[in-house]
Amino acid sequence: MKKIVVIGGGTGSFVLLSGLKQYPVELTAIVPVTDDGGSTGRLRDEFGFLPVGDMRQCLAALAADNGRLRRLLLYRFDKGKGLVGHNLGNLILTALEDLVGSAPEAVGEAASIFRLRGRVYPVSKKLVKLVAGYSSGKTIVSEYKIEKYHLKQGESITQLYTRPTTTLNELAAAAIKAADMIILAPGDLYNSIIANLVIGGMKPAIKNSRAKLVYIVNLMTLNSQTHNFTASTHVKEIEKYAGRKVDYIVVNSQPIKPEIVRAYKREQEYPVADDLNKDSRVIRRPLLSSSVFQKPKSDNLKRSLLRHDSGKLAKAIIKLI
Amino acid sequence: MKKIVVIGGGTGSFVLLSGLKQYPVELTAIVPVTDDGGSTGRLRDEFGFLPVGDMRQCLAALAADNGRLRRLLLYRFDKGKGLVGHNLGNLILTALEDLVGSAPEAVGEAASIFRLRGRVYPVSKKLVKLVAGYSSGKTIVSEYKIEKYHLKQGESITQLYTRPTTTLNELAAAAIKAADMIILAPGDLYNSIIANLVIGGMKPAIKNSRAKLVYIVNLMTLNSQTHNFTASTHVKEIEKYAGRKVDYIVVNSQPIKPEIVRAYKREQEYPVADDLNKDSRVIRRPLLSSSVFQKPKSDNLKRSLLRHDSGKLAKAIIKLI
Repeated sequence: MKKIVVIGGGTGSFVLLSGLKQYPVELTAIVPVTDDGGSTGRLRDEFGFLPVGDMRQCLAALAADNGRLRRLLLYRFDKGKGLVGHNLGNLILTALEDLVGSAPEAVGEAASIFRLRGRVYPVSKKLVKLVAGYSSGKTIVSEYKIEKYHLKQGESITQLYTRPTTTLNELAAAAIKAADMIILAPGDLYNSIIANLVIGGMKPAIKNSRAKLVYIVNLMTLNSQTHNFTASTHVKEIEKYAGRKVDYIVVNSQPIKPEIVRAYKREQEYPVADDLNKDSRVIRRPLLSSSVFQKPKSDNLKRSLLRHDSGKLAKAIIKLI
Repeated sequence: MKKIVVIGGGTGSFVLLSGLKQYPVELTAIVPVTDDGGSTGRLRDEFGFLPVGDMRQCLAALAADNGRLRRLLLYRFDKGKGLVGHNLGNLILTALEDLVGSAPEAVGEAASIFRLRGRVYPVSKKLVKLVAGYSSGKTIVSEYKIEKYHLKQGESITQLYTRPTTTLNELAAAAIKAADMIILAPGDLYNSIIANLVIGGMKPAIKNSRAKLVYIVNLMTLNSQTHNFTASTHVKEIEKYAGRKVDYIVVNSQPIKPEIVRAYKREQEYPVADDLNKDSRVIRRPLLSSSVFQKPKSDNLKRSLLRHDSGKLAKAIIKLI
């Protein structure tokens, strides 16, 4: 069975894994350890555990049962003193980590209890903060604050690293080594994807892997991180931090509905322009989900209205393996 | 396959179900809807749902996996703002109830997600309060307050009912009708056992069932409810509220360790004296667990130090079917 490693976090990995698990492949999700906002941030502060939000998304995506178990893991309390805003899946992972002693073991337990179709590994075993250095000379420490920041005119992230530094979880390293394909999922370019690539040992691990390296370009820019980025700027940043050329670049070719474009424009976010014309590595497919997603009430984090369609995305990717 | 219905709540039902599930019998647990203390009480107040604590105990007992899933369902947060004291199983049931709309459906969902070896039904679908009337003329409304009360010299509970009144959940009624054996589990006599018997329609349901009625006598008196009660006083109260003679009375014959007797004595609680000498319905067996149980740190509810042994208890009972 072919082995696929998906690197990323949040909704992007969720959508991609949900699609890929329909195929007979061996899946491993690798998630960042730098999330410090929302329910995850509260639990991280109160328990001192690795952040659970991205793990929860991957667990939900890989749950054998597409319906009820997934809904349960993603359930978010909208009442209850102290519970409001917490995801049940986050609480389950926190309890498991407290019971078994570490996040990697906790997701292992969850995988068995919830009969997951794949494995989920935190990219590192150490709880670290994400640090962004900007072209303006500014430095922001905290993934949550990086996400909340609005780039000034012409400003961009020029450096990303963790404080303190840390090394690649050996389980993640082994999965990368054995992989036939490594996919950099769609998602927040710096906070969800590159946050994994800057972990000590990740660059050589990817470089030395015989796996095809696939990058799925985001649908929209993020005003906190990728303002004015085109598809080729995304690819350039990915290659800079991965230390290797990507083999395939997956790009959506389907026009985005005007009302969705307008909603994003209000937040100064725009469709990522495809300027990869002559690049032979590009796979262009209509990849949009037809559903429009809503922000949950009790969520103080930004959520995408627009997503890739898991089925279309997985179909495009499986052909590349 | 023989059908057994276990009526009760808390640790008593947990221990009994944990033992019985090792046998090829069809198990149904019926739990009270009047619990309003601790984690359960907070969730009940904040969500307006049926109390989840007793359901959680039964889910944990019936979980196919004896180890990790059970530990997860029983996990109690001892840190985290607003989380302290909550059981994860309670939070899971609350989330499920919010997702599917009712407690009976929520436990049905949980049964499927967690591959339970039996069913769990709340005795009624209506959220009601437990009311105790005392020989002194006193009335206490709230299961939690009844549990916290210390009986005065010579005082006893003379009436137990719910406010408002409610009727038996039809799923519980059907299970009782079809049962080969109905077991009144060990546990708080009024709060966990009789709290089920006073639900509208329960008395005729038990009376009309062809099932054998088995009562497991408590190991210790409770100073809030059964001070000075002997085994025969327990049986008399059970028969008064069940409206039917019990067919078997299961009594522990094993001496309790002096240090445990001393610990209970400090709380003015004593071993239940066996005064059922000549009663032919009595099954006397050594039934004590050799483990000594500890009160969890963040728990403001009383917990027993002494328990029945699930294996010994189930073995004694299975022979009666």
